[in-house]
Amino acid sequence: MGKGRVEAFTDGVVAIIITIMVLELKVPHGEDFSSLLPLWPIFFSYVLSFINVGIYWNNLHNMFHTVQRVDGRVLWANLNLLFWLSLMPATTAFMGENHFAPVPVAVYGIDLVLCAVAYTILVSKLRPLHGSDAAFTKAVGNDRKGKISLVCYIAAVLLTFVNQWIGVAIYFLVAAVWFVPDTRFSRVLEK
Amino acid sequence: MGKGRVEAFTDGVVAIIITIMVLELKVPHGEDFSSLLPLWPIFFSYVLSFINVGIYWNNLHNMFHTVQRVDGRVLWANLNLLFWLSLMPATTAFMGENHFAPVPVAVYGIDLVLCAVAYTILVSKLRPLHGSDAAFTKAVGNDRKGKISLVCYIAAVLLTFVNQWIGVAIYFLVAAVWFVPDTRFSRVLEK
Amino acid sequence: MGKGRVEAFTDGVVAIIITIMVLELKVPHGEDFSSLLPLWPIFFSYVLSFINVGIYWNNLHNMFHTVQRVDGRVLWANLNLLFWLSLMPATTAFMGENHFAPVPVAVYGIDLVLCAVAYTILVSKLRPLHGSDAAFTKAVGNDRKGKISLVCYIAAVLLTFVNQWIGVAIYFLVAAVWFVPDTRFSRVLEK
Amino acid sequence: MGKGRVEAFTDGVVAIIITIMVLELKVPHGEDFSSLLPLWPIFFSYVLSFINVGIYWNNLHNMFHTVQRVDGRVLWANLNLLFWLSLMPATTAFMGENHFAPVPVAVYGIDLVLCAVAYTILVSKLRPLHGSDAAFTKAVGNDRKGKISLVCYIAAVLLTFVNQWIGVAIYFLVAAVWFVPDTRFSRVLEK
Repeated sequence: MGKGRVEAFTDGVVAIIITIMVLELKVPHGEDFSSLLPLWPIFFSYVLSFINVGIYWNNLHNMFHTVQRVDGRVLWANLNLLFWLSLMPATTAFMGENHFAPVPVAVYGIDLVLCAVAYTILVSKLRPLHGSDAAFTKAVGNDRKGKISLVCYIAAVLLTFVNQWIGVAIYFLVAAVWFVPDTRFSRVLEK
Repeated sequence: MGKGRVEAFTDGVVAIIITIMVLELKVPHGEDFSSLLPLWPIFFSYVLSFINVGIYWNNLHNMFHTVQRVDGRVLWANLNLLFWLSLMPATTAFMGENHFAPVPVAVYGIDLVLCAVAYTILVSKLRPLHGSDAAFTKAVGNDRKGKISLVCYIAAVLLTFVNQWIGVAIYFLVAAVWFVPDTRFSRVLEK
Repeated sequence: MGKGRVEAFTDGVVAIIITIMVLELKVPHGEDFSSLLPLWPIFFSYVLSFINVGIYWNNLHNMFHTVQRVDGRVLWANLNLLFWLSLMPATTAFMGENHFAPVPVAVYGIDLVLCAVAYTILVSKLRPLHGSDAAFTKAVGNDRKGKISLVCYIAAVLLTFVNQWIGVAIYFLVAAVWFVPDTRFSRVLEK
Repeated sequence: MGKGRVEAFTDGVVAIIITIMVLELKVPHGEDFSSLLPLWPIFFSYVLSFINVGIYWNNLHNMFHTVQRVDGRVLWANLNLLFWLSLMPATTAFMGENHFAPVPVAVYGIDLVLCAVAYTILVSKLRPLHGSDAAFTKAVGNDRKGKISLVCYIAAVLLTFVNQWIGVAIYFLVAAVWFVPDTRFSRVLEK
């Protein structure tokens, strides 16, 4: 079964998710710069989510590059990941419109946790389809980076109830780490 | 006539349908977990529709994989299916916002019936373009699974007026049956 | 210059246009069938526009199939067509929400006129890039069907001010004529 | 690393941006032509943004045509450009709904400046991946047109506070200059 259409569909859904989040940036009716000020939490959470969804697209792009085969289980594992990503416009707005109150920040983090879990499941469904010598297997390795991110997200959700800004800081920190492009896949491919 | 662009357009429309449904998840302004509670019927109907649209994408993905030719009638039969799928964000919201009241649950089911009928029509327009030995013909067979689903949906719509939760249960049951990937197409292709 | 990305971009924009129109189908809060009744003008105009945009996609699909070359002028002529098509969600809603009042019906028709003019311009920019023996040139011919449609749309706009239902009837009539797939392109290709 | 999926994802996001802007054209409930009149600033800003986003799509289309390699830095530089383009529906609405008041016109221009800067960064990340003899390098040249546009946009933002219509006029002027298709890339390719 070809991977082409899975890639195309995934790209389509991710492109829509990353773009409709901007619909939450409701335009103010004031005519001066100060009327834009109340938008900062929504804009700030939009930036964070744009980076996060961008990271997922980047990683999926690189990962599918090494994938050789997909099957029915992979299609559903991929749809599962897209489901949790599709909630990001809602959780982003929840966080932004409530000015980074603790519970909305935690809910945003729970969505990040579930996205990370879904990504791990997707990888685990792709593993049995690829031999231990396949580019995919070598590139993914033991996915330490993914596992550490997951632990960080869970810690961030819990620490949100101490102070929500600790949670937000961890979200940005993890994003920054991934922002540096994941060289695993390209390194293996170059060999 | 190539099938490539029909696949691409179908993927595009389905990707948009599956994603804009999330716009109905209007963000609450409360700052605690309890403010999320009233969202449950909308979230619950979103999950059901995400699975249903996902099933259609999956089946279309697998079916078009074996398709060799398309013609003008197929293009319109496909657009007909996309039309009824495009109503799903509206029927999903109708069901969710009215907390699974009987009529909205029935209307949702009527849309599922019409999608299933449209899928059957699409298959019937593809049949004459493929010989009896073609992978497509063998894979589709007599489409018993599709016909049973259609009967189930009609039963669900009628039983909704006894108790709407019977209808909802049948919707989930049929989804669960399809959730197990349709192996017909991949089985035939492997030979 | 390759036509692939022009096709892909056009498909993307058309897929979004055809799908976001459904966002106008605002969900009623009533719980019985009668609460759906006030939606009929919006639903009815959605059906008309879905068919119209579907026809454009179909025709563009068939036409680009025979196209061999595109240049900068074609890109802009295509964007021009997409612009007028992109107004269709707005003109559809204007017509539906005002229950097919004469002016909104005329405005809808003016958009159809402008789409048809834009399509004609697109064809005229593609002509000089194809020899008189090219599949494209033979398939388009003198585009009589397109020209008659244009005249019909203009007549419909004017007759709307006599009675708006004459206009609506002509819109459906022209759609019905195009609904029968445009065999020009496939006929020429088969030779 | 292949450029195919970067192109596809970029096309998808740009297609969505250019289309969801029309959602700001909120339909009036009046039934005569005069009810459309108050829409002119929103329509006018929509036209300007449609042209601007169309120009970016056109330029990206032509540029990626000559691109031979992409890497992780290019992916992020491209996402950065898409981020600033994704704000265009919001800045367009801000400008239109406030009837071209000076600050909203300046904010719109600041977004154009940031898009132009992001485009320049994208080009600079592509340069080291292409030899001095590559089609890409020859086609881009010193990107004088891009640099002049950037200076014009900055001037427009500043002059907005003298009179906002000077800013709007410059936005249209720069758009008109780019509207003439960028022949650099096609010229080099033809050799």
